[in-house]
Amino acid sequence: MDPERVVHVPLLLTMDPALGDGALGAVRDAAIALGGGQVLWMGPGREAPSAPEVHHLHGVALPGLVDCHTHTVWAGSRADEFLRRLDGVPYTQILEEGGGILSTVGATVAASEDELVSLAAARLARLRARGVTTVEVKSGYGLQADAEARMLRAARRAGQQAGVRVVTTFLGAHAVPARHRGDRAAYVRELLEEQLPLCAPHADFIDAYVDRGAFTVDEGERILAAGKAAGLGVRVHAEQVAFTGAAAMAARLGARSADHLERVDAAGIEAMATHGTIGVMLPGAMLYLRDDPPPVEALREAGVPLAVATDWNPGSSPVACLLSCATLAAVTMRLTVEEALRGITCVAADVLDQPDRGRLRVGGPADLTVVELLPGEPATPGALVQHLGAAYGPVHTWVS
Amino acid sequence: MDPERVVHVPLLLTMDPALGDGALGAVRDAAIALGGGQVLWMGPGREAPSAPEVHHLHGVALPGLVDCHTHTVWAGSRADEFLRRLDGVPYTQILEEGGGILSTVGATVAASEDELVSLAAARLARLRARGVTTVEVKSGYGLQADAEARMLRAARRAGQQAGVRVVTTFLGAHAVPARHRGDRAAYVRELLEEQLPLCAPHADFIDAYVDRGAFTVDEGERILAAGKAAGLGVRVHAEQVAFTGAAAMAARLGARSADHLERVDAAGIEAMATHGTIGVMLPGAMLYLRDDPPPVEALREAGVPLAVATDWNPGSSPVACLLSCATLAAVTMRLTVEEALRGITCVAADVLDQPDRGRLRVGGPADLTVVELLPGEPATPGALVQHLGAAYGPVHTWVS
Repeated sequence: MDPERVVHVPLLLTMDPALGDGALGAVRDAAIALGGGQVLWMGPGREAPSAPEVHHLHGVALPGLVDCHTHTVWAGSRADEFLRRLDGVPYTQILEEGGGILSTVGATVAASEDELVSLAAARLARLRARGVTTVEVKSGYGLQADAEARMLRAARRAGQQAGVRVVTTFLGAHAVPARHRGDRAAYVRELLEEQLPLCAPHADFIDAYVDRGAFTVDEGERILAAGKAAGLGVRVHAEQVAFTGAAAMAARLGARSADHLERVDAAGIEAMATHGTIGVMLPGAMLYLRDDPPPVEALREAGVPLAVATDWNPGSSPVACLLSCATLAAVTMRLTVEEALRGITCVAADVLDQPDRGRLRVGGPADLTVVELLPGEPATPGALVQHLGAAYGPVHTWVS
Repeated sequence: MDPERVVHVPLLLTMDPALGDGALGAVRDAAIALGGGQVLWMGPGREAPSAPEVHHLHGVALPGLVDCHTHTVWAGSRADEFLRRLDGVPYTQILEEGGGILSTVGATVAASEDELVSLAAARLARLRARGVTTVEVKSGYGLQADAEARMLRAARRAGQQAGVRVVTTFLGAHAVPARHRGDRAAYVRELLEEQLPLCAPHADFIDAYVDRGAFTVDEGERILAAGKAAGLGVRVHAEQVAFTGAAAMAARLGARSADHLERVDAAGIEAMATHGTIGVMLPGAMLYLRDDPPPVEALREAGVPLAVATDWNPGSSPVACLLSCATLAAVTMRLTVEEALRGITCVAADVLDQPDRGRLRVGGPADLTVVELLPGEPATPGALVQHLGAAYGPVHTWVS
């Protein structure tokens, strides 16, 4: 097949150590040829094939970025809550007053599927404009069967509209809805008996927010195990507000990832390492909640791979740029530049069980992102991560 | 005069309490008419005049943003230093080893004026693309007379190229150059006798980095007083690394601003309030240096106005987006939304002695920025500041 387009860059990061230097599989003065939705050729620029469309860009080429943790389907706004939090009102208090997640639930349940598609597509288009080509989207603002399923359908339709690949996660266990405050067991029963059967056909993963103020480890285990039995991959929101043991529980269930982890303990880290559970770092939530970082050094030493995601949601992480999260992960959590860049590409793709995404190889999908650097900036991984503003410049994406 | 263009928005922030609601002078469902480089009319959208060019935007209109503290003329890159700092090497050690500012000085001195113009113009264009229409640019990477003057000339030319108004600041007292390490007095003498006379014609302000590892309060006072005598406005980098008393010293000299202030004391705050010295918050540097916030509450209680700037430089604050700094100032320094928005408009203009900039009034310059909000986001000041990603969407600017 003849290439449709060839992109020349001073630095290509394949994310495959077998295809280039170091953990990022770096190739200098490289070109990549795309055609028929596939990568057809990669190599030194001077040996590149010709093509009808040729780009010479001063930037870093890398696999289309993968945002593996978002809540980008919602209606309403929580800008008012932002003002209250600036005034020092703790998020737990806002939650207890029916704000936070529950205010978004009210607006989302009231919205039609078409409204949700249009709101979400605009958000996904912003992620795409900043280099993201694969996005995980969670439900969890419905908290009843029809609204949860509507969110998942809306997520997939929004992805088609915005030109990004969407992976969906059923998160009925995001919060206990107001109507079940007095009877949590009844909500878990509803989730297992009504929501899960209706939602599983529209979902790739199941997730649960197991934390103080949300679900217990026992409840989370029943929910995640049921999702697994229904054929869904397992994820978990773990150890963010308080240590509960959620990460270890989910790891033993074979979870692909445990996300947040600010308060994970040594046993949780060991269980994650043993079961191949990836740690998802969410520096946006850490920034907005003024939280402490997760124990990155201990996770690294135990061999737990680290992904980085936006956690884009209307409350605790209103952050629309994955590359900025890579920068924040380096600056505020002390991830290395290599960890930060693998965390938004190949490791994030592993979280989503998408082994073809987040890395570039001949025969693989033509998901390519080029981040243009400012004149005078060297084309190095460090320069890409250093600037919080790297992503403010031109970013080009091609998707298969 | 007939308007050339009319912009309709759901929220217009004039920054003048006499022209609208609250400290931001807010007008709902407003229109603004521009022509001949001036604001010709502002008012309710339904009463707007007609014009050849009419925009209806879902966003917040505000005065062209003012970035009152940047170091955007430089050559070279410090991406390597970023990697070292991630490894935990303290900035003071990098400085002592000839890195940090001094490595940028080497590359900048070696660059031609045309090279500096082209590098700086690309940076200023990025700031403009994110809503900034007035930028202060400092010298300070020359540290010898010809190179300092070259930087200032380059800054002004770069502003013309990028379509932003540039205000220049002579910062020969940015660091003691390697050749004068053994004889600081000789460098201060050179600065006063050679650099200042050559640079003053190209500068609007003088600034000095008075801190541990840089200049003493006595040295800073001599330098700033000489600049003032040469007709320049006074600024100071104060109380960032260590408390020195720099803020009080500069306030007594009539400084327009004292910048950084992480370690300012009560006497410094009182002197600033007494002399009308503005505090410039630099949340990018705070983020990258993992520093503590300045005493915002004490500054506020004393009545010190607060500005917010990017401090964009190749080392401690590689941040290219002023709106993101407003968000960071709210989230990490606890500025209110109103303080953050006034801090990047009218208060920043006051720092630069540009009373016509940073506010919108009929007869004033037509410097206008509209930040488009995502569908579904309410057009409120809170929504504008809440999203670290607000500025990632379309931003429109018109300049007089």
